[in-house]
Order: sequence, then structure tokens, then C-alpha cells
Amino acid sequence: MSQPSSVPRTFSFDEIVQAHARLADAVHRTPVLTSATADRRVGAQLFFKCENFQRMGAFKFRGAYNALAQFTPQQRRRGVVTFSSGNHAQGIALSAQLLGMPAVIVMPTDAPAIKVAATRGYGAEVVCYDRYTEDREAIGRQLAEERGLTLIPPYDHPHVMAGQGTAAKELFEDVGALDTLLVPLGGGGLLSGCATVARAMHPACRVIGVEPETGNDGQRSFRSGQIVHIDTPKTIADGAQTQHLGQHTFPVIQRSVDDILTVSDAELVEAMKFFAGRMKMIVEPTGCLAAALAFRGQLDLSGQRVGVLLSGGNVDLARFAALVQESALQETQP
Amino acid sequence: MSQPSSVPRTFSFDEIVQAHARLADAVHRTPVLTSATADRRVGAQLFFKCENFQRMGAFKFRGAYNALAQFTPQQRRRGVVTFSSGNHAQGIALSAQLLGMPAVIVMPTDAPAIKVAATRGYGAEVVCYDRYTEDREAIGRQLAEERGLTLIPPYDHPHVMAGQGTAAKELFEDVGALDTLLVPLGGGGLLSGCATVARAMHPACRVIGVEPETGNDGQRSFRSGQIVHIDTPKTIADGAQTQHLGQHTFPVIQRSVDDILTVSDAELVEAMKFFAGRMKMIVEPTGCLAAALAFRGQLDLSGQRVGVLLSGGNVDLARFAALVQESALQETQP
Repeated sequence: MSQPSSVPRTFSFDEIVQAHARLADAVHRTPVLTSATADRRVGAQLFFKCENFQRMGAFKFRGAYNALAQFTPQQRRRGVVTFSSGNHAQGIALSAQLLGMPAVIVMPTDAPAIKVAATRGYGAEVVCYDRYTEDREAIGRQLAEERGLTLIPPYDHPHVMAGQGTAAKELFEDVGALDTLLVPLGGGGLLSGCATVARAMHPACRVIGVEPETGNDGQRSFRSGQIVHIDTPKTIADGAQTQHLGQHTFPVIQRSVDDILTVSDAELVEAMKFFAGRMKMIVEPTGCLAAALAFRGQLDLSGQRVGVLLSGGNVDLARFAALVQESALQETQP
Repeated sequence: MSQPSSVPRTFSFDEIVQAHARLADAVHRTPVLTSATADRRVGAQLFFKCENFQRMGAFKFRGAYNALAQFTPQQRRRGVVTFSSGNHAQGIALSAQLLGMPAVIVMPTDAPAIKVAATRGYGAEVVCYDRYTEDREAIGRQLAEERGLTLIPPYDHPHVMAGQGTAAKELFEDVGALDTLLVPLGGGGLLSGCATVARAMHPACRVIGVEPETGNDGQRSFRSGQIVHIDTPKTIADGAQTQHLGQHTFPVIQRSVDDILTVSDAELVEAMKFFAGRMKMIVEPTGCLAAALAFRGQLDLSGQRVGVLLSGGNVDLARFAALVQESALQETQP
């Protein structure tokens, strides 16, 4: 297996095994749920790995904690900085709180008050920036330099990728071999980690990344062989509004993933509605990416054992209510 | 232990063990979830047994299946009849479908279309009655006689009670000893089964039934020593609008339960909101009874290991959305 020059170092299953041991006492071993109704619809046996039930509501806690737990004593004393208005912010904030270190999160001034409050609730300092005039990465780097903080980016870091991969490791441990594994794709932290696990534990398992059709930079990068940059895509899958894959995630995805496919926002809403109505759980739009692909019925999954990663459940309740109600009204029509 | 004369026969843990073996391949072994936030609020270690993730969305499937699985070949050929507009109807309908027998469900003419559709969706025949002028139990008995069907009531039947008890058996098997077990109370099928399990597996565990404060017939019965009948109570906990405990459930509750307490509808909504917002799951109002008592903070649970049975998740999505949104709006106020 050739090693693309853009990878600063190898990334292996061993790192994920070590990450899992490191995380064992901190993460929830989330349940794998099944649904006879979903199985009938798809004509396959689906295993939903419920990271919506992870601490702080998403898989992001795994990678954040795995990164912070490897800080040196001096790094811990100084603390961590990151930029994110989403689940990574909360993952870093909670991990820092649990590990007793300062955390600074760079968030846009127009971030939802509830997300800012949640991040502060975990004890983090929030630094605001204007998303139209300022560069969050530059602010993060500047804070890191000025205060001696360690920057942990949302996905493009081997420790983050290794942590995210532990979700797939648990899934395979719990249900055994799978024919296909479907994983949501934003910047590729989760997908690169999970694909590495599949290759090591069940090499025959087909691994497919799923992204919003308006933001198919991952698919284009995968097919063209180089990282494609796009403008911030318009989609309700706010966790997959990344503009490009990472220097670390892309080569791993290239060598370990079988394909990258897309779904529409309408399909995400349909999936959210299914999870709420039939499986009694709240999955955020981004968290529905993999499931929406399975439900669509275009991919041949007939008779297969299929792992479906539900990545998170952090959706504003009012927004969630509006989405499922709208969809519920449609259902009452003939 | 004296045997009250109203019990037609003994009811023992052995029956629950047998029920569990009978159910093993049919039911979901539902997960036990935890929440650091809930633990902090209550000052205890809470273990939520998530029967909202059970097949057809509630624990009722356990008792229904356990009863139907014990039918003789002749009973199976003829089929089952029951009266219920709630989870028991769907539990019976799904069980009958799985076991390949006819099912007739007596439902009020004004039952929500969605519930009638769900029951028919499992292949059951729905017989409607006017809840203001007709007696559903009489209709059920008449159908049983005319068509040779076997009547399985919603809670007052040892096979039903034994099936429901398997939820607590799984909980104890998964988490070990508990100091307190909190169980929703309607007609007492779930509580009698779960209390019997606690007495057998962890005799020191305190068992508390929780009912809506507007429908405290269980509490009054427990404290007075005889079954108290009330008018149908007004509460959002539609699964606990029973008017009285059963001839089978009451004596078991009397000898195996430590106390029965009540919560308000407002407290149920608060709990629903917590589960949706923090734990990303949908719990129906009745399913929140036990949790609402724990969250209230009046009961001393300090430092304890507490089992909290979440009984179901079947709530109309539009209604759910309205309830959590209303509550979400309140939260944004200081």
C-alpha cells in the first residue's frame, strides 16, 4: 500500500485500539439498535450505531477526548483551543472539563445562543469572531501562540481520527461481520477512522461515505484523486458543511473507502421522521446521512448485514419539532 | 407470606424466568442508558431502562407476546381478542402477527386514526365501539364467546404480568444491584412483574410505583388495603388513565412494593423535555412517570443506584413537538 506524500505519518488500526483503551472509562459504549420495519423497507439487516446517545450528543466526543488525553502535563496546564460552532466545540469543552484543563473555543458571533451556552456550560471560554470578516483558523492559531494553547482542529488530526474510529470498532465487536458500512462524511474524521477499522477487522466489508448532495466535495475529491475545495454548501446537515477534506483524512479515505455517495435534504428529513416516529429517537440531520442512503433504496443492500452510523442528535428542539411535524402532516395525506 | 384470597393462584419469579426464555428471540433487549447530567441533578446514579425502544414502542409487547405464545394450537387457530386504544392493542396485534394468529381489537370510534392505522398495519381486525354508550369489556367478552377467541386483558392476567416483569430482569442482569427501582403504574401489570423480580433478585431494593397525581387510585388502594375505583383521570399520561388496579396485580403490589407516589403533568413534560434535549430520545408522557419522580428531588435518592423504567415512546409526533417546544421556549427565559 503506497503512502501518499501528504500524510505526515502513517495512520493505523493500532492507534484506534489504543484510543479505545484510553476512552473506555470516559465514553458511553452506545447501543446498536435494530428495527424490523427498517429491515423490511430496505430488504436488509440494518444495525444502527447510535452515537446520538454519546456524551454531549455526538461521536465528536471520542476524537476530542482521545486528543486531549494525550497532552503532556505542560500542554494540559496551558489548555486547548479550537474553532467550531458545532459538536466538536462541545466535545472539546466537555473533554477539557473532564481532564481538568482550560479550553478556548472560537465561535462565530452569530452562533445560536443555545450552543454558546452549552459550550460555556462545560466550562470553556468562548471567543467570538465575525464569520464574514475574520478567519477563525487564524484566530485559533494566534490564540494558540499567544497563550501557549494546543490547537486541536475538528477533524484533520490523527488523534481525532483514531478516537472517531472507536465507534466502528464497538459496532463490529457488538454485531460481528458486516457486508456494508455506511458512514456520514463531513471533513472525514469519522469516515477515515471507521474505514481503517473495517479494513483491519473485516476487510471484505464495503465502506461507503455519505455526504449532502449540495456539498459533494468528498465525492469529487475521492473520484478525482485530489482534495476539492467548495464554498460552504447549503444543507440542513450542518455538521457536513465542511469545504474540503483534510490532509490527514483524505489519503486514508482514498485507500480504505469503496465509494462516496450523496443524499438530499428531503431524504434527511424523511430519515429523521422515521427515527422519531418508529425508533423513538432524535437524530440530527447530519446524523441521518448514512441512514438516508440506506432508505433511498438505490444502493444494492439486498439481504446484506449493514452497519449504519448515526453520528449525532444535537438539533435544536424547536427546529426538530418543525421538521418532523411538517413531515408528519404529509404522512396523514393518502 | 400470606396469600390474599383474591389471587386465583400464586404469581412467582419462576414465571418471569420462563417468560424471559419464551420471549428471548422476539423482544428487543432494550439498552440501559445513563446521563451524567441527570446524575448530577439528582445526586444519584440513574439507570434508565429504555422500553421506549422496545418493539412497537413500549413494554406492552412483552406481556402480550408472553400470553399469546402460551395459547394451545386450538386457541391459536381461533385467535385473540382484546380491548385497548393504547400500547396493549399494538402489542397484541404485533404478537398475533408474529405468531400467525387472528387478532381482534376493540377500539373506541374516536380513537386517533393513526392508532387505528397502526393496529391494522399489524394485520389486526379493529372493531369500533362508542365509548360513551357501550361497554368495551362486554363487547370483548361477547366477541370471545361468539367467535371462540381468547380474551387477553391489558394488565390483569398473570401471563401479561410475567412478560412485563422481564424488563426489570434484564435491567438487574445488566447493571446489578440497585437501591431503588422506580416503575410507572397504570393497572399494575408492569409494576407487579418488576416488583416480583426485585424481591427475587435483589430483595433489599426499594420498589416504588409512580402514577399521575390526578389518578392516584393505586396509591389509595395500596394505602387503604383495598382496590379503589376512580373516574377516568385527566392526565397527559394516557397509559395510566386506568380506573383501578386488577384482581391479580393488586395483591402482588401489596406484598412486593414499598410505596406508590405521584407526579404532576407539568413534571412529566419537564422530563420529556429532558429526554429529548439531553438524551436525544422520545419518551411518551406515561413513560416519564418514574423519571419525573426522580427528577423532582423530593424522594431521597442521594448517593443511590436507581433503576428508572421508561415504559414507552408512543406519542403522536405533532403532540410531542408541541410539548417540547413549549417547554423549550420556557427554557430560553432567564
